[in-house]
Amino acid sequence: MDNFYVGIDLGGTKMLAAIVTGDGAIIAKEEIPTLAEQGQEAVLDRLGSLIERLLAAVPGGRSGLHGIGVATAGTLDTANGVVTLAANLGWRDVAVSAVLADRFGCAVRLENDATAAAVGEWLAGAGQGAPDCIFVTISTGIGGGIISGGRLVAGVNHNAGELGHITIDGNGPLCPCGNVGCLELYASGTAIGRRGAEHVRRAAEGAVPQDGALVRLAGGDPNRVDARLVAAAAAEGDAGASGILREAGRALGIGLVSILHLLNPQVVVLGGGASHIGEPLLGPMREIIEQRCLPAIRGPVQFVASALGSSAGAVGAALMMSRSTN
Amino acid sequence: MDNFYVGIDLGGTKMLAAIVTGDGAIIAKEEIPTLAEQGQEAVLDRLGSLIERLLAAVPGGRSGLHGIGVATAGTLDTANGVVTLAANLGWRDVAVSAVLADRFGCAVRLENDATAAAVGEWLAGAGQGAPDCIFVTISTGIGGGIISGGRLVAGVNHNAGELGHITIDGNGPLCPCGNVGCLELYASGTAIGRRGAEHVRRAAEGAVPQDGALVRLAGGDPNRVDARLVAAAAAEGDAGASGILREAGRALGIGLVSILHLLNPQVVVLGGGASHIGEPLLGPMREIIEQRCLPAIRGPVQFVASALGSSAGAVGAALMMSRSTN
Repeated sequence: MDNFYVGIDLGGTKMLAAIVTGDGAIIAKEEIPTLAEQGQEAVLDRLGSLIERLLAAVPGGRSGLHGIGVATAGTLDTANGVVTLAANLGWRDVAVSAVLADRFGCAVRLENDATAAAVGEWLAGAGQGAPDCIFVTISTGIGGGIISGGRLVAGVNHNAGELGHITIDGNGPLCPCGNVGCLELYASGTAIGRRGAEHVRRAAEGAVPQDGALVRLAGGDPNRVDARLVAAAAAEGDAGASGILREAGRALGIGLVSILHLLNPQVVVLGGGASHIGEPLLGPMREIIEQRCLPAIRGPVQFVASALGSSAGAVGAALMMSRSTN
Repeated sequence: MDNFYVGIDLGGTKMLAAIVTGDGAIIAKEEIPTLAEQGQEAVLDRLGSLIERLLAAVPGGRSGLHGIGVATAGTLDTANGVVTLAANLGWRDVAVSAVLADRFGCAVRLENDATAAAVGEWLAGAGQGAPDCIFVTISTGIGGGIISGGRLVAGVNHNAGELGHITIDGNGPLCPCGNVGCLELYASGTAIGRRGAEHVRRAAEGAVPQDGALVRLAGGDPNRVDARLVAAAAAEGDAGASGILREAGRALGIGLVSILHLLNPQVVVLGGGASHIGEPLLGPMREIIEQRCLPAIRGPVQFVASALGSSAGAVGAALMMSRSTN
């Protein structure tokens, strides 16, 4: 077996590890719960065991391992492989790279999870072959990455690609990030769920009809509403739920027009849980882009679904590791 | 004398030609009126004579000329050196590169004027040495260019960098470009002048005080108001004029936060006539950025004034020509 890499996507609820070739093919993968509440040592120990299990299943075992790439959220010191602050894990100053390098005796590279997913989709997924490619992940938040002229747009201190925190309404509400009217406030899975919960709350107050699918699916309880439930209600014809998805999709379109006007990409890859809502969300998005985007820029753009799904971050982290050793 | 290049900035009212070294130093330059109303043949003929005059002043004359770079506005077919459509010149399908190549027997490269100015400032002006650099020109419209990782972000069909046409209010007014709530509608010199004219009109109607500096400087005539007059009135303490500049500056800040969040640059170069308004415009811009930009991205950014001024486009066009022959 040739050289291979381990890619990790370390999230607040799940961690996924994959054995990945230098071409981005997945040889083996496994996902387990993170159980962050057990603390950083337990999490890193279980992550190590997960990697060992995968390596044991590969012909030749560890001898082919040429590096580990770790994709994760939060504030990262990528140069030193340290997770500086990760709210979803409850971590502060955790030297992830050093721990894994000690255990596996190989190079380890730490990377922002959305950036890694963008690189994964670009090199081995839905953006393959497109030198100018934008990756947008619509999930709890909205993140992504930018590839221009065949290279990742990293920025001066590796913080480029905050796609969820571009303003779509400069007089809009305050975002927890400190900016105002951010795309993420209107179009993330969390935003869709929040608007759905408001709908159910207003139904309980008698302000909107109480016989819709969303109210029924939620059992009248606003706390049970998430983006998935809103999508399910819209699929049953609930007008309120459809309206929520339409507004979120329009917000996505508004944000994407700005991104397209700045970057003139060839491919936009849409990933993340909420992107699976499909047409009720993406139809209004495309409609705004058709209406508002400069024709010369709109013309060449293809919108495609993520090909790697939840493996994109792990594949991208492995490929970024492989490229940094070449 | 070593190799040199001719850089041209061909505008609707003026054309500027410069003899530029491969390092971006200007050996000689001259600016003359375009007189677009005389038609394309006359304009191109006078442009050719302008280049000849400059070449005659250089030791060695034409022998050192290694190419001509032309920066201009409008829709361009850069691959074939054709101005497809330029409203400011009244041109449609004008083969600028072929005309100049025939006359001077050298390679000619055509480039968008804002892109060329961005490259000029980056390679030989205020952005020198910064691999991640944004150039914003605030003039009749708002344009610019993006440099990331030491390379121009061109986009798939060379249309990236439409900085004036990112949305700052997704429910705002329609922009002539087809998008809604574009930065240019709020913060260009034209926008500042339009708001100043509205102010004078409302004063004539008695809706705002009639004794301010702006009304006096305009002689009560809304048609005489431009951005320069608004700036002059603000300098005399006119509260209405100051408010107009503050709102334009805040809009610039809102747009720049989106740009910074996407691209994480090290330097933002501000150019164009309206950028000379200075603090009354740029102070509110910086205030918004201080308030709203992610600290990790705001931290490393420097805001600097254009160093090349009205020569930036010509220098950049010459340097892009020089690099495409290397």
